[in-house]
Formats: sequence, C-alpha cells, structure tokens
Amino acid sequence: MATKFFSKRNLKFLLYEVFDVESLTQYEYYRDYNKKISDMVLQAATELAEDLLWPSFQEMDRNPPVWVDDQLMVHSSVRSIMKEFGKGGWIAATVPEKLGGEQMPHLISDTCQFIFAAANYSASAYGGLTAGAAHLIESFGSKALFDTYVPKMLSGTWQGTMALTEPEAGSSLADIITTAELTDRGYYKIQGQKIFISAGDHDGVENMVHLMLARIKDAPAGIKGISLFVVPKKRLDEDGRMVSNDVVTSGVFHKLGYRGCPIVQLSLGDKNDCHGYLVGKPHNGLKYMFQMMNEARIGVGMGATAMATAAYYASLDYAQKRKQGRKVTEKDPTKPPISIIEHADVKRMLLFQKSFVEGALSLLLQCSKYVDMEKACASNKKEKYHLLLEILTPVAKTYPSEMGILSISNGLQCFGGSGYCDDYPLEQYYRDARIHPIHEGTTGIHGLDLLGRKVVMNGGRAFELYLNEVEETIRLAKAFPELVAFSRKLEESLENLKEVTNRILVITQEKGPEYLLADSTLYLEFFGIVTIAWQWLLQAICVQRALGGDCGKADLRFYQGKFIAFRYFFAYELPKIHGLAERLMDPDGLTVDMDTNLFAD
Amino acid sequence: MATKFFSKRNLKFLLYEVFDVESLTQYEYYRDYNKKISDMVLQAATELAEDLLWPSFQEMDRNPPVWVDDQLMVHSSVRSIMKEFGKGGWIAATVPEKLGGEQMPHLISDTCQFIFAAANYSASAYGGLTAGAAHLIESFGSKALFDTYVPKMLSGTWQGTMALTEPEAGSSLADIITTAELTDRGYYKIQGQKIFISAGDHDGVENMVHLMLARIKDAPAGIKGISLFVVPKKRLDEDGRMVSNDVVTSGVFHKLGYRGCPIVQLSLGDKNDCHGYLVGKPHNGLKYMFQMMNEARIGVGMGATAMATAAYYASLDYAQKRKQGRKVTEKDPTKPPISIIEHADVKRMLLFQKSFVEGALSLLLQCSKYVDMEKACASNKKEKYHLLLEILTPVAKTYPSEMGILSISNGLQCFGGSGYCDDYPLEQYYRDARIHPIHEGTTGIHGLDLLGRKVVMNGGRAFELYLNEVEETIRLAKAFPELVAFSRKLEESLENLKEVTNRILVITQEKGPEYLLADSTLYLEFFGIVTIAWQWLLQAICVQRALGGDCGKADLRFYQGKFIAFRYFFAYELPKIHGLAERLMDPDGLTVDMDTNLFAD
Repeated sequence: MATKFFSKRNLKFLLYEVFDVESLTQYEYYRDYNKKISDMVLQAATELAEDLLWPSFQEMDRNPPVWVDDQLMVHSSVRSIMKEFGKGGWIAATVPEKLGGEQMPHLISDTCQFIFAAANYSASAYGGLTAGAAHLIESFGSKALFDTYVPKMLSGTWQGTMALTEPEAGSSLADIITTAELTDRGYYKIQGQKIFISAGDHDGVENMVHLMLARIKDAPAGIKGISLFVVPKKRLDEDGRMVSNDVVTSGVFHKLGYRGCPIVQLSLGDKNDCHGYLVGKPHNGLKYMFQMMNEARIGVGMGATAMATAAYYASLDYAQKRKQGRKVTEKDPTKPPISIIEHADVKRMLLFQKSFVEGALSLLLQCSKYVDMEKACASNKKEKYHLLLEILTPVAKTYPSEMGILSISNGLQCFGGSGYCDDYPLEQYYRDARIHPIHEGTTGIHGLDLLGRKVVMNGGRAFELYLNEVEETIRLAKAFPELVAFSRKLEESLENLKEVTNRILVITQEKGPEYLLADSTLYLEFFGIVTIAWQWLLQAICVQRALGGDCGKADLRFYQGKFIAFRYFFAYELPKIHGLAERLMDPDGLTVDMDTNLFAD
Repeated sequence: MATKFFSKRNLKFLLYEVFDVESLTQYEYYRDYNKKISDMVLQAATELAEDLLWPSFQEMDRNPPVWVDDQLMVHSSVRSIMKEFGKGGWIAATVPEKLGGEQMPHLISDTCQFIFAAANYSASAYGGLTAGAAHLIESFGSKALFDTYVPKMLSGTWQGTMALTEPEAGSSLADIITTAELTDRGYYKIQGQKIFISAGDHDGVENMVHLMLARIKDAPAGIKGISLFVVPKKRLDEDGRMVSNDVVTSGVFHKLGYRGCPIVQLSLGDKNDCHGYLVGKPHNGLKYMFQMMNEARIGVGMGATAMATAAYYASLDYAQKRKQGRKVTEKDPTKPPISIIEHADVKRMLLFQKSFVEGALSLLLQCSKYVDMEKACASNKKEKYHLLLEILTPVAKTYPSEMGILSISNGLQCFGGSGYCDDYPLEQYYRDARIHPIHEGTTGIHGLDLLGRKVVMNGGRAFELYLNEVEETIRLAKAFPELVAFSRKLEESLENLKEVTNRILVITQEKGPEYLLADSTLYLEFFGIVTIAWQWLLQAICVQRALGGDCGKADLRFYQGKFIAFRYFFAYELPKIHGLAERLMDPDGLTVDMDTNLFAD
C-alpha cells in the first residue's frame, strides 16, 4: 500500500499562501493561532492519521460491523480512534474555549479533518458526526442539555448522530412522521422509525446521542411542524444511572462501501418508553438542523476530496513504479519499457486527478475561511460571509462528490487490471466514494437548492457577492502577464454563467418554476466548474508571486507542478461548460413535459 | 428484484425495423433466417436467460469462486449454463453448418448474447469466450486441432479462453516472454506465466482450452515474434487418455465485481511438461489473435450495454413505485407524495440511461450487420465492411464501457440511499461494470488504436467510409420535416469531427506523433458521441416512418418514447463535443511536454 495519502506541501500552500490563515490572528477570537501553533496542530493531526487511522483503513473495510448477540460491533480500532479524537481535542476543535473547546479556526480544523478523511474516511466520520451534533446542542439547546451531553461527546465517550431520514421521508423531510408527545415531566415520548443513520449504533463508545427530527403531536403539516430532539440510546434515570431509552437498532445496511462505519435503522419507542428532549423551540427543528446539515454537507465535500486525494497518490505511486510500453516514437522493441507515468495518456489521468483534488480542496478551504470570517468579523460584515456560504454550500458538497468518483475512477484506470483487484486500494476508494452524491442531500436536491433558493435568495444578493469574489480574483490575476489569457477565459466563463442564469430566469417567468428547476443539476455542474476555475486562478496568483520571488529548487518544482495542474483545469475541464450552456439555454422543457408512460417499453 | 432486464420491443425494433435482418435472407449463406425462425431463436434465448441466467445473477456474485483442495470451484449453475449454451447451439451460433454450427446471422446471435449478458454478464462470459476461442481454431488452426478441440468447445464441455496478458506484458503485448520450444514430436513445450485470464480455470467444464500467445525460441523481438498456441489444461496422451498438461492455476484475483467469473493466474511448464500446439504459422500469433480480440472487444461493448440496460430497467421500476416529494408547483404538504419518476430530475436520469442503452445497442447491432455483410456479400464489397468494422471497433468497445458506468451510476442515484445497499441490484451493476474500460484493451489503448491506426489506415479510407455512412443517414433523415433540424445538427457535428481530425493531423505533421496521440482518449470520446448521434438519427428515421403509418396505441407509446430519448441525446449528450473540440484544437502539448518530476509534491 502507498504510504503517502496527502501532500503536506500543498496544505501549507493553501493555508499560508492562498488563504493566509495567519491573518486571522488579527481577530481577538483567533489570536492564539499563529503559524507556530498551526504547524503544531497540523503535525499532531498528521501523526494521529498516520499512526491510528491509516493502518486500519483497509481492515475496517474487510471487517464491517457485525452483530454479536444484541450489540452491533465495529472494528476494535474505532474505540481507540474515538478516544484519541476526544483526548486530542479534535471533536472540540472549533468549540469556544469557555465551553471546553480549542477555539480553532475552521481553516485549520477543516484541514485536519481533511487529513483524517484522507487516511480513513469511515473512521473520520465518527468524530465529524459527533462534533456536528455537539455543535447543534451548543447552538440551540438549553444549558442542562449541554451539560448532560456535550462534554461526553467532546471527549469521544458518546457518539453523536443526525437522525433525519425515515422509510417514507428521505429527500422530502416534510413527510417525517416520527412523533413526539409532551409528558408532564417535561420530556417528550418519541415513536417512529429512522433509517440510514450513519454511526447510528456501535460498541466503540458508551452511548449514542441522536439529534433527531420528529413531529410534536398536533404540529402543522410539512416542514413547519418539525422539531428537533436529543434522543439518547441510554438515558440517565432520576438516580443518575444509565438506563435503556427504548431505542432499538432494527437493522444494519450492507453497503457498497464506507463499510467501516455502520449505517443503521432505528426503531424508537416500541415499548412506549423512548424519551426525547426538545432542542430550542417547537417547530423550528429543520431550521436548527440546517446548521448541522450545512456543516455536514461541506464535510462531505471535504471527505470526497480527501478520498480522491489518497486515491491520487496511490495511483501516482503506481504510475511511477510500473513499467510498461515505450514512447510512441520508439520503434525498437528491445529497448527497456518505461514507467507508465511517461505516457501522455497516463499523465492526463494523473493531471485530471491533481487538478480536481487541489482545486476542490481550495474551494473547501475557501468555505472554511468564510466560516472563520463570519465568526470573527464585525457584525455588519457577517451577512456577506453568511450569504457566500449559503450559495457555495451546494457547490462545495456536490462538485467534489460527483467529480471525486470520476477522479478515483481515473486513478483506478492507471492501475489497469490491478485496479479492479483488492490487492490495491483503488477498488475500495471506488466503492467508498459512491456514497457522497447520496448522503447529506442527493446531487438533485443540491441542484434545486442552488438554483431554486440560493441564486435567487435576498433578491440575488448571494449570487452578486459570489460574482464579486470571482471578479476580484480576475482583477488581481490580470496584473501577472502569465495569467492574462487565463483571466480573460474565466471572465468569459463568468459572463456565460450570468447569461445562462438570466436566460433560465426569463424562461421561468414565461413558463413557470418547473422550467427553472428541470436542469438544475446541470446548472450546478456548470456553476461548480466555474467555481473551481476561480479557485485555480486564485492559486495561480500565489504561484506567480512565489515564482517571481526567491524560491528553492524543491519549491520551484512544487510551483511548476501547480501551474501545470492549473493549466490542465483551464484546458480540459473549463471547456465543459460550453456543452452545458447549450443545453441550459434551450427552453424545450423536455423533462418537464414528457409523459412518464412513454418509458413503458 | 426487478423482473424486466431488457425490452423485447426494442430488440424487434432494431432487428426488423432499423437493421432489417430479414434482408439477409437474400444471401445464400443466411437464407434460413426468416422472421419466423429469428423470432423463435430470440424466444429461446429469452427463456434460457429468464430460467437459468437471471436467477443466479446475484447468487454468483455473493458466492465467488473458491478453492476446494486443488480445484477452483465456481457456482454450481455454471455447469448447467455451459451445458445449455452447448445443447442449445449458442456457442456454435455463428459457426457454419458444415462445421457443426447454426450459421446464424451475427445480428441475431449478438442480440441473443445481449439478452444473456443483461441477465447475467458473468455467466454469459463463459460461453462468449469459448465461442471466440473456437472461432480462432476454426479460422487458423489445422483440421487435427479443430477435430480435437472445437466440437468439445461448441458443446460446452470444454471452456475456451484467451491467454495474452503476463505480469510484465499487459497493454504492451510486445513484451510477452512466455516461451515455446519445438520438440521433435511436433508439439511445443511452453513455459511462462499468464495473468488476468477470464474463466481461466473452473469446475463447470471438463477441460480448459487456452488460446495462448507465446514466443518461439529465437523468434524476433516485439510483436513480430509472437505465435499462437492451443494449450489445454488436460491433454490427450498417445493412448487417448486425458492427462495433466502441467498448467497450474497459481492464483485467483479478488475483484471489485464480475465475481461470477474467475480471473486467474496460470503457471505453465513448471515441470517442463506443458505441451502447446501451434495455430497457423509461426510469428503470426498477434494477427490471428486480433480476430478474437476484435470479436471480444465488440462483445465487451455489448456486455457493458446489456448490464446498463438491466440497471436501467431496475431503476425505472423503482422510480415508478417509490413515492417521495411533490411537484415543485405543489405547496400543500398534506397532498400525497408522487412517484419519483414524475420529478424532472429523475426523468432526466432515466432518459440519460435510456438514450445511452438504446443508442449504444444500435451501434453494436450496426457492427453486427457489418459483420454479416462482410461474410455474405460479394468479395469486391467485403473491404468496405471490413474497414467500417476496423474503425468502429474501438468506439463500439469504449463508448459503452465508459458511458455504461455513468449510466449505471445514474440508475443507482435514482434509488437514493437504497442504491448504495445490496438489497437492490444497482450496487452490483456498479461494481460489475467497472471492468469494461479495462479488459480487452483499456480505454487509452483504444484511443491510440482509433487515432493512431484506424483513422489514418489505408490513406484514410476507413474514416471516409464512416463519413459516407453517417452522411447517407443525414440525407435520408432530411426527407422528414421533424428530423431536419436534427439532421443539420449532426451535419455540423460531423463537420466539427472532420475539422478536429484535420487539425490534429496538421499539429502532428508539425510536432510529431506524440502530439497526435496525446489526447486520443478525448478524440475517441468525441468520435463516440457523434457515432451514437448517428445511430439515434437512424432510429429516428424508422420512428418517423412508423408514426407516419398505421400504428396501434402501444406502438404509438413505444415510438413516442423512442423519439423523446432521441431528442434527449441531441439536447444533452451531443453538445458535449463542444468542450472536447476546444481542447482537441489546442496544440499546447501539455501532457507531452510535462516533466513527470513535477508530480512529486
């Protein structure tokens, strides 16, 4: 197995050169995170990933969760991993100091999550879900709820989950029917079924804490009647003892991949003894849950990018070592074969991966920086960062999820027949990665979210802010002669995006919202490509700055490699918007008007 | 599990309406295959697929080959399947009557192979490989070889394989080192290693017959020194008894999918007692083997299309039954949810699949018809069909293989979370399908083949014949008012293909062959899209003819559905050539010039 699963050099480039994480120290909230501290944090995360997560990557896949009597058992390393996530402060990384956390910039903390997910995505999910669930209680729960649950979660002793989906309510959360009935003791009695709950039950922790959506008796129909509850697997009784809370794991799914982490079905209140504790106000549950969902969505984008990064380095390693064939100009069969990395088509597959993983990671850290800025900046500037995050979340979730599959598929292809066999890790990445366009909102849902909500929200303000950000990068890039042509190309692409957006809005006014949303998945793809091109131009500016200064031989190689990947993206990926634009400009409403009976034969 | 895995109506449309299989009866060789006989053959294939292949589709995946003592055991149904393939004349389908075969048109026989592969690809591979191996002996072997091996293979008693790849010679067959040394008894002694041999050993038959490439002692280096041998697992000794031929199965690969069929590693001549029997002349092995490879390549395209077809019908079935969400114009959450097939984005995913599987199948049967014409037509016309097959083989192999993965991925996506779980068949199709861009020449190899050999062969004659075929379809389509706009679009696309081709050839003259081939994979993708658009226009002509005539209600629905899928392909898929063209017109040589050391960080 390859030993390199991410590039430290690239992380430092993005953190210190592109996103200038040190600049955050100017804000009181982040004053402690100077370069020295940040480097130490990254080093600690790297060691944890290398020593604990990476070694069990394959083992956790080969030994998926199993039932032993009534307990769902996961790989034994999960217990030590959760302990280390707690002990090292990783689950509490972004929690304020006064609440027992590390108060770390998201830029740093998300980079560490990237390292963990690159080493072992399944393992990283346990911690990530727990952090998100704890954050939800921190944000909207009472002090009592916080005190009972959050410290145990931050220490990795209890597992947090998000429990939304039901057998008849997946993409459509409006149809949730799990019920909550208020008792005179202040808690609610919960009854219902939840499915597809990641890390929803296992023996690596002492308790499970489900952040669960349910409908209070007589609540309004639809999403306006959904409330958020804490529903633990074991609750504290009046004497402070842990007792069963009538939460039964009724099934575990056998999955294509992501096998190190169980996805389960839960049955709640079969004995009418499942207690739930309301978080915040009644009927505001979906609004609260969106905080966790948005974090989880960006987390999925990060996970997809991380997985593809590890797959890229594995395929790079193979391509460097494997010898096969000769240059097309070499006609003498007695000459020794060359490394396959020397073949143009293999270079292309590697550059595709490199340009994807480094472009996507840049976008994800761009989002992290917006989160940090929203937290730290003056209150009159918060809206800007908030809206930028709103519009970028569906992109940051989906582009990496969809392209990550193709990137890993290209990595697998570099291995030839060996890529199809489990002697090498690519087949596992290929299986693992397919979850990403599904969980935390399918790609279709994110298309609807981007075009149906985010682009038009606040009178188009989020979209306008986005355009400003890209235009500012174009402006800066034009100062570098080597970037002028690329800046113009992005400028044209951005114009094209505006034109397509306006055209869709006009069609909609004429024909109705179904026409707005029919091709929203393609619109999301278009938006994603332009967004990654923007991030590449941003990186290219830093590359040009560095190349214009004093840079050592190893650094020179790094920056030149970066620049090739940047050129690759503009030459091979950005042109894909032309085909998408042609389709998006066409108002024929093919998929709106089609009678579904025509599929019959 | 869904019960429909292909559309009989569509097969009849393609066979009788688009490719007019009945017209072949005008040739003496195919005179028996009138509509009645053809229908009976299709019916028999359907019954075999439904009764024997389909029921073990999932079981063969869940119970992959295992060692029991020294024997590699496959699922018990393999034995009955091979028997039925033999008894029913399926392995001998296209063999001339005088040699014990059915003398069936490839159009019919390949359609039956499609049905088998849609039901159970792994199972179908055993028969397909045996037929290809037998055909190779029939074409180039001596009568003695034929008599010893072929009848046993055609009856499904012995398994045929193609044994090319070695640990250090995969894509580069020039580097084969397995040796063959002539003995004074007329046979050769074989020594070496072969890997990735599909169906290379199993207990479902009585013997294995490997069609194997090896190098005769003192042969020239490279591909000019490769010869073809029959190397059985058990040979007949001088007394006519079956004895071991020193062929040892040294390993079986654990694969992502395609698990119903073992892929093995063979060790030959460890005891210096492995006999091989030369096929044809020395040093002509690769030329002979190309016959089997070309058949196998089109077979892979067919298998990929068949798998995606079964996946499409499974996802269609789910989308019709699964209820979730409401129309975007429906704001009342108390209204009942609708079938997900009513959502435009789900229709899009289904249309993507439908337009792919029906477009690709049309191309594959187009190839089958060319094979039939080459066999049956007057000798002065054979070259035309031969060259058309030469240029279309890399396309017919690769477009279905690459797009099949995306098609199945879209099918999986229709299932949401359930698509990721093994309660439904999509995750298996997703795993199974990933083999296709790898086996029988990777996608990269086919890109090189198309652009480096086929487009330029015979002074561009194959390419010219291809253009003529497409232009003839455009000419015919223009007679239908509903097809005029589509005809023009294909005309423009074809012009674009010519322009890109010429541009690449000019760049090559200036800069050398590495520039010709650097983006040949993209060129192949471009060529594939235009080719499928051609096949769709061909189908659309038949649709218009039918709609212009007298057609019943069910037929009306079929033709209207066809026409929507045709429109989908032109609206959503054909525009993808624009992005490819932009890249292909650029002579920057990014992947040629890049120093591979720049990947280091």
